[in-house]
Amino acid sequence: MTVNVPGPDDGLPPLVDHHCHGVLRHEPDPGTFAAYLTESDRPPAAGTTFFDTQTGFAVRRWCPPLLDLPAHCPPDRYLARRRELGPDETRRRLLGATGIGAYLVDTGLPGDLTGPGETAEAGRGTGYEIVRLEALAERTALGVRDAEEFTHALDTAIHHASRTAVAFKSVAAYRHGLALNPLPPTPGQVHTAVRDWMAAGLSRLTDPVLLRHLVWQAIATGRPLQLHTGFGDPDLRLDRADPALLTDLVRATAGTGTDLVLLHCYPYHRHAAYLANVFPHVYADVGLTLTHTGPRATAVLAEFLELAPFGKLLFSTDAYGLPELYLVGAALFRTALASVLGDWTASGAWSADDARRVGAMIAADTARRVYGLPASEPPG
Amino acid sequence: MTVNVPGPDDGLPPLVDHHCHGVLRHEPDPGTFAAYLTESDRPPAAGTTFFDTQTGFAVRRWCPPLLDLPAHCPPDRYLARRRELGPDETRRRLLGATGIGAYLVDTGLPGDLTGPGETAEAGRGTGYEIVRLEALAERTALGVRDAEEFTHALDTAIHHASRTAVAFKSVAAYRHGLALNPLPPTPGQVHTAVRDWMAAGLSRLTDPVLLRHLVWQAIATGRPLQLHTGFGDPDLRLDRADPALLTDLVRATAGTGTDLVLLHCYPYHRHAAYLANVFPHVYADVGLTLTHTGPRATAVLAEFLELAPFGKLLFSTDAYGLPELYLVGAALFRTALASVLGDWTASGAWSADDARRVGAMIAADTARRVYGLPASEPPG
Amino acid sequence: MTVNVPGPDDGLPPLVDHHCHGVLRHEPDPGTFAAYLTESDRPPAAGTTFFDTQTGFAVRRWCPPLLDLPAHCPPDRYLARRRELGPDETRRRLLGATGIGAYLVDTGLPGDLTGPGETAEAGRGTGYEIVRLEALAERTALGVRDAEEFTHALDTAIHHASRTAVAFKSVAAYRHGLALNPLPPTPGQVHTAVRDWMAAGLSRLTDPVLLRHLVWQAIATGRPLQLHTGFGDPDLRLDRADPALLTDLVRATAGTGTDLVLLHCYPYHRHAAYLANVFPHVYADVGLTLTHTGPRATAVLAEFLELAPFGKLLFSTDAYGLPELYLVGAALFRTALASVLGDWTASGAWSADDARRVGAMIAADTARRVYGLPASEPPG
Repeated sequence: MTVNVPGPDDGLPPLVDHHCHGVLRHEPDPGTFAAYLTESDRPPAAGTTFFDTQTGFAVRRWCPPLLDLPAHCPPDRYLARRRELGPDETRRRLLGATGIGAYLVDTGLPGDLTGPGETAEAGRGTGYEIVRLEALAERTALGVRDAEEFTHALDTAIHHASRTAVAFKSVAAYRHGLALNPLPPTPGQVHTAVRDWMAAGLSRLTDPVLLRHLVWQAIATGRPLQLHTGFGDPDLRLDRADPALLTDLVRATAGTGTDLVLLHCYPYHRHAAYLANVFPHVYADVGLTLTHTGPRATAVLAEFLELAPFGKLLFSTDAYGLPELYLVGAALFRTALASVLGDWTASGAWSADDARRVGAMIAADTARRVYGLPASEPPG
Repeated sequence: MTVNVPGPDDGLPPLVDHHCHGVLRHEPDPGTFAAYLTESDRPPAAGTTFFDTQTGFAVRRWCPPLLDLPAHCPPDRYLARRRELGPDETRRRLLGATGIGAYLVDTGLPGDLTGPGETAEAGRGTGYEIVRLEALAERTALGVRDAEEFTHALDTAIHHASRTAVAFKSVAAYRHGLALNPLPPTPGQVHTAVRDWMAAGLSRLTDPVLLRHLVWQAIATGRPLQLHTGFGDPDLRLDRADPALLTDLVRATAGTGTDLVLLHCYPYHRHAAYLANVFPHVYADVGLTLTHTGPRATAVLAEFLELAPFGKLLFSTDAYGLPELYLVGAALFRTALASVLGDWTASGAWSADDARRVGAMIAADTARRVYGLPASEPPG
Repeated sequence: MTVNVPGPDDGLPPLVDHHCHGVLRHEPDPGTFAAYLTESDRPPAAGTTFFDTQTGFAVRRWCPPLLDLPAHCPPDRYLARRRELGPDETRRRLLGATGIGAYLVDTGLPGDLTGPGETAEAGRGTGYEIVRLEALAERTALGVRDAEEFTHALDTAIHHASRTAVAFKSVAAYRHGLALNPLPPTPGQVHTAVRDWMAAGLSRLTDPVLLRHLVWQAIATGRPLQLHTGFGDPDLRLDRADPALLTDLVRATAGTGTDLVLLHCYPYHRHAAYLANVFPHVYADVGLTLTHTGPRATAVLAEFLELAPFGKLLFSTDAYGLPELYLVGAALFRTALASVLGDWTASGAWSADDARRVGAMIAADTARRVYGLPASEPPG
């Protein structure tokens, strides 16, 4: 079996996947599998299938060889072989071929998913946790009686999380959009907003006062804060997820010492790169975007690298549910990076030494610095 | 004579041009010809000519050989030969070389233009009509006495059109911008808006209440609704034509069973592709955009294909006035598609079978499904 | 010594750099040098350096050979050699290799910088001045007693400047954003705004009424007006610098006979190209953008050339402080242009004659027409 994944022999250090999610513990049925290929939470249009997307084609390109099948084999055949091997062996094979050394897992998504340690173990790497603020707040609210108790419990929960998690994450882009008032709300505003939210039966947290409170509470811990920006599921208004809308918040947080990591960014990745260029505490992430753009990942990565300082860009997969998405994310990143840096070196624009150094920064070194990870992972 | 148009022998089925316009019945003078090369309705800047644009260069690349002249010959020589042949022979030669099998003609533009059947006949294809809503409403208003009569007449006109036309089209982007209230207006709101419009002397229809009413009346018929998005003439505010602004309308219409087709999209084509990705009833169109970007059509098509599901993207030319624009639109589409899919196949990212299948979808198959056209056209 | 700068032998006429700034008269220390590589006015993030950007890599690629060092040599070595040669010799060598024949210098930036004549002399070209409106107004305000006197003094200053300068420049994008009321303010509004500004102690001029007044006063002179659009330093909100926001001002100024030149534009350069396409008096500039995108300058220039009419696009470097930025700007422009036009010619999309003609337009001819420069510069 030839594994046509550009792997650990491409000169990159073990990758740090600084933003990902657990994978399904159980075998998904074909419809469920296909649904994980898209950010949509809706059925495919009549006459179409989610396999006919760049993500679907990328899965069919990279994964079948690891399950002893030819690349591009039909979905049915692939899914049949997957069932034959079972979820554990599939996961072991796919994650084992990614060359990822550290998994920073956002644990805030629903489903019977592997946790950070469990995910990392299948890939023979190290797992770390990222705490999603809105999920933490919603969970915290379930066990309290009133607004005051909630505020205290939330403080405690965030403080506690900051000792074990490597970062926090905000999905304010989904819940409200990024055009947030940049200042921290006052205690009185927070109290009123919590009371109203509890009175309304603790529905999904969308109050911009509470979303801002979470952001500022997380920032106070000094842990890097990941912010969803750019595309996602249909719950989001794309134009309200433009990272440029965060400019005022970026300015307001410039003196805190806390780093902000703009996730995904597409199709506003040039905007995100600009923010990373001019604000020292802003970083940008290529994850999700590369996974969903297939052979265009090369061009999109190059667009990120127009204005993003080379020490401000971070690899991730944003894989969720399927171990296939880890493999595809890593393979597309490796392919795109090799292509971009190879072209620039061949033309004389960059030196080979610089290209190697920049590749390692994006793949792992910057994430290790930003999240305070050990210089390399202990053997798994 | 060598026809250097990548034509019917490139493996694609006869193209379905799902959005185009009639061509001039009479020979245009040189200034009129040049004016059709741009979306602008203004004169060229001093010292410049509309021939010095990607559209102008593309016309000079593809069309002269079909009139027995060398590619890139000077505009004057081309126009002289065109006059020599006359409009009928020119049209016959240019349309006959496009490989377009079905012409879906928006009949709402002014000028002495060929109709759907007449256009299609010159290209030996089949013609279908698309009804432009604002033009229909303005025409309907001329023959009625009051608001009530207008509302009934409009209902009748839309109902009637839905039995003969294959789709409706809205140019709300021009008339107001796409940031429309997503809900259908109430009958009372419509009545008031019609009354005000009639009282104001039936000037150009720009009232957002009426624009929304037209959109919702069209949607109620079940026929696909084409929406102008992205660039166009100077009448339009580009930032107000971002298809992302349609998100709330897209959500509000998700349960209707009617498809929305986002036209043109550029430079927001990645936004349009995103909407097509996450909403089952949203489609995106590459027309106009490819025609105006010349050798960059390859890169722009590739950008569409980042997030757009492959069964959600549609070919068109948006040709208007000049048969040259049909040829250029078809030739740039064929060239761009062959280049993009060829590269992806050569690198192993896609299989050749998949590339062939996706090419046929974009060229014709998806349009046939969405507009309910016969699987293939009867011989002309 | 091999000078690997694509230079005067590439067939282009002497370049017209239609927007640039003076360079430092004295040798900068290493930190100051690095700070000029970025648009940021803040320190680099911990663990990063401004040399690890496309601008830093481009300086290391193009400049060391002109100081007798190998391309891509380490920053320290380059800076040591620079000190050894001294600022005058460095400037002479770097500017002398650009092939720029005319320097249009915006004199409104602070620092001990060379003026237009002094800059041009080092490059053996001709210098011209561009007057920055906000700086002119702030300077004028220092010497007057009341609002009325200011208004008269400003009129005089603008009138005077219009006789010596070749253009005006507005940085309203920085001071307020481009979503300005498109109409000229009334004399009463101007009077009130000036009085309030003076009462507030003549702080930085940010009042939109005054910014509009400056724009309209400049337009009245008939000199081309350069408008900052797109990216810049962190003082700017990127999304408020989208040139599409200028559409209403563009419409309002269409009858004045004055040309508007949209500077920089990135990442909204497709928006700027669209405006240049549909409005006769709008032009677009590639400066700053190419300098900061390194080997991506080719792709970005190609994006400009999608919709921009070929006689509407202008070369500049936007160099500031370092003569290195002149060399990098010119070298990246020449490289990108040769690559783009070479590809399009090779594929048959463009003829070689057209490519040569368009190259000369962007490099120099259009700027000579727009700014009323002599057809060629007298020998220096």
